[in-house]
Amino acid sequence: MPVHYVPPAPADLLPVPGASLGTAAAKIKNWQRDDVLLAVFAPGTVAAGVFTQNRFCAAPVTVCRRHLGGHGERAAPIRALIVNAGNANAGTGEPGLGAAESTCAAVASMLGCTLQEVLPFSTGVIMEPLPLAKIVAALPAARAALAPDHWFRAVSAIMTTDTVPKGASRRVQVDGVAVTVTGIAKGAGMIHPNMATMLSFIATDAPIGAALLPALTRAIADVSFNCATVDGDTSTNDSFVIAATGQAPLAPIERADDPRLAAVRAALTEVATELAQALVRDGEGATKFMTIAVEGGRSAAECRKIALGIAHSPLVKTAFFASDPNLGRIVCAIGNAAAPDLDPALVSFWLDDVLVVDRGGRAASYREEDGQRVMKNAEIAVRVALGRGDASSTVWTCDFSHDYVSINADYRS
Amino acid sequence: MPVHYVPPAPADLLPVPGASLGTAAAKIKNWQRDDVLLAVFAPGTVAAGVFTQNRFCAAPVTVCRRHLGGHGERAAPIRALIVNAGNANAGTGEPGLGAAESTCAAVASMLGCTLQEVLPFSTGVIMEPLPLAKIVAALPAARAALAPDHWFRAVSAIMTTDTVPKGASRRVQVDGVAVTVTGIAKGAGMIHPNMATMLSFIATDAPIGAALLPALTRAIADVSFNCATVDGDTSTNDSFVIAATGQAPLAPIERADDPRLAAVRAALTEVATELAQALVRDGEGATKFMTIAVEGGRSAAECRKIALGIAHSPLVKTAFFASDPNLGRIVCAIGNAAAPDLDPALVSFWLDDVLVVDRGGRAASYREEDGQRVMKNAEIAVRVALGRGDASSTVWTCDFSHDYVSINADYRS
Repeated sequence: MPVHYVPPAPADLLPVPGASLGTAAAKIKNWQRDDVLLAVFAPGTVAAGVFTQNRFCAAPVTVCRRHLGGHGERAAPIRALIVNAGNANAGTGEPGLGAAESTCAAVASMLGCTLQEVLPFSTGVIMEPLPLAKIVAALPAARAALAPDHWFRAVSAIMTTDTVPKGASRRVQVDGVAVTVTGIAKGAGMIHPNMATMLSFIATDAPIGAALLPALTRAIADVSFNCATVDGDTSTNDSFVIAATGQAPLAPIERADDPRLAAVRAALTEVATELAQALVRDGEGATKFMTIAVEGGRSAAECRKIALGIAHSPLVKTAFFASDPNLGRIVCAIGNAAAPDLDPALVSFWLDDVLVVDRGGRAASYREEDGQRVMKNAEIAVRVALGRGDASSTVWTCDFSHDYVSINADYRS
Repeated sequence: MPVHYVPPAPADLLPVPGASLGTAAAKIKNWQRDDVLLAVFAPGTVAAGVFTQNRFCAAPVTVCRRHLGGHGERAAPIRALIVNAGNANAGTGEPGLGAAESTCAAVASMLGCTLQEVLPFSTGVIMEPLPLAKIVAALPAARAALAPDHWFRAVSAIMTTDTVPKGASRRVQVDGVAVTVTGIAKGAGMIHPNMATMLSFIATDAPIGAALLPALTRAIADVSFNCATVDGDTSTNDSFVIAATGQAPLAPIERADDPRLAAVRAALTEVATELAQALVRDGEGATKFMTIAVEGGRSAAECRKIALGIAHSPLVKTAFFASDPNLGRIVCAIGNAAAPDLDPALVSFWLDDVLVVDRGGRAASYREEDGQRVMKNAEIAVRVALGRGDASSTVWTCDFSHDYVSINADYRS
């Protein structure tokens, strides 16, 4: 069960004018459920994405980069996303690239658009050939199922080890016009903030200009998905795409200083942050949700390295699982991740409101029962003060449980 | 149970002329066993060490560096090691440093040597005050128990989550004189090759010169303990010390090109390697022992980064635990750790003799049942060829099991 996360009801995910979603069962794995998602957008829609930094990136990631990259720094016009669960089409070499392109070609032919206007995404087992024929055969059914209010079905079709579907919507007023932002995300393991860290798609009818959307997408990824980590493994397939249909009756928002952008940006950020935290709350085997905030560093990069060092330490994560205030492990993780010139005598840390380490040593006020009280909570904040600057960084992570091992030992069986 | 490791019998650990070991029960934790080790060396013994790179290094590590560091690049004369299990004396600030120095002072007073000739070591829980009085009170009993053939008792006294004591001996002939090398090591979790990665002590009666020993110690650590990793967490206390008593009736070995050094160096390397692999074989919860070799890189550092990336991936480690040839996870780990300019199309990897990935994609010859056959073994070799240079690097690691979680969730209870 996810930690403090109530999944959306179907009606919570608001339709976005200009976006329709349809799902179908391609039977890629032996699942009794839909496993293919087709999202179709109105003409005029532009999209931008951020993708995994893994050097063995999946074939669909390479194809997305090609299709989006032909427009320089501008967002690309797109008409459809095609997504499958159950097979990652990663580590599949040239045949995998061909299969990803062929999937797009089949969608383009069906919809009457260009190949470049279709973006492919895959999630599932790595290094198995993509069952192209099954996916292509499922396309007519997915098209027949297209509807603006199928966001819940959409996210349900792309789940793998997720225990619940994740989605969020916001509706904001811009110059008296209602603008909608709806996003979905999947992912529970192999999650690490070296990029978008999973599959997530957000659509809005706000008319965000093609010159503005790529940088906006990167900035939103940085404060949302790039702060989430489950196990430090960056997937080969991570992809985050924002599609702006432009269907809201507003003049285009072309510049970053357009005052109308603030409300749209806030809504996009809220949706992305809620989705990113939902991924961690539903992390494989997670029983706790931790916010790791490191402040007082010389740079945000330094703070982030230490926050991730804490978040990725198996010893820290198992201590949280056990609700055991074995807090020396956090000290150890800080010491491993810190720069060589960090002075431990300036470092303090808190567990929620409890001061544990006071400038390099155990705080005189610290009592084991206070640590124990906090560790029993399902949601815990760790705050580290480095005492040598003004920079800070925050990441979200979960604990490391027996179920993580079970889920990942049994994943393919 | 350790993977393919038969612990030594007491008689297997050969006495080293000039070294005596005594243990006692200081009752630092609620253990029915000895938990303090005193090792005493004959006058003329020199020692060199390598220590954790963790910035929150433990007080005894700081004291060891002080005591060894007063002689520049030369090995320091030493007379005793004092080691306790059950408390790491780390994250303890100034009081911890005082406690480590006081322990040394008590030993020095008892033996009639200088404070600087005593090296302290601690292993156990971090951030608890060292129970100095208990350790000092146990010193007379440890001294009374001193004997040259107590190596097995010695290593038994410093175990924490180790399931078996680890030790190794070699006897080699140098100019017709028998020279002995005996070493012990403890450590099962919090093990990562950013230094000596645990406590290990090796003694030899070879008359290795003070100018030669420090570099020799570092070189031996690099090919042994620095190739071992269990969970990627570098402890605050890692220490590896070689003590040379000089008791063998040989003229001093002062230069690296002394032909007599080869046999001694080989024996030291064999003992250190056997101990380092034993730590991994007895890694917390380990059921498999993996050798990860990366070759064809531009630099050893590049190869090592990728080897560690594979060795530290929780997804790879749980797949090995499950004997599941979910080998896409290895591809993913390579892609995460590789340099941005790595060309995946040149990368191949083998599982033992089975070619899995052939230049970027699944090998045409690869069959699932071949991968399955290898994955069922308790000892497995992963070989990665990067196809862009001549450098290579190897690390040893173990899998990630339910027992790892149990051991670390329950450690303090």
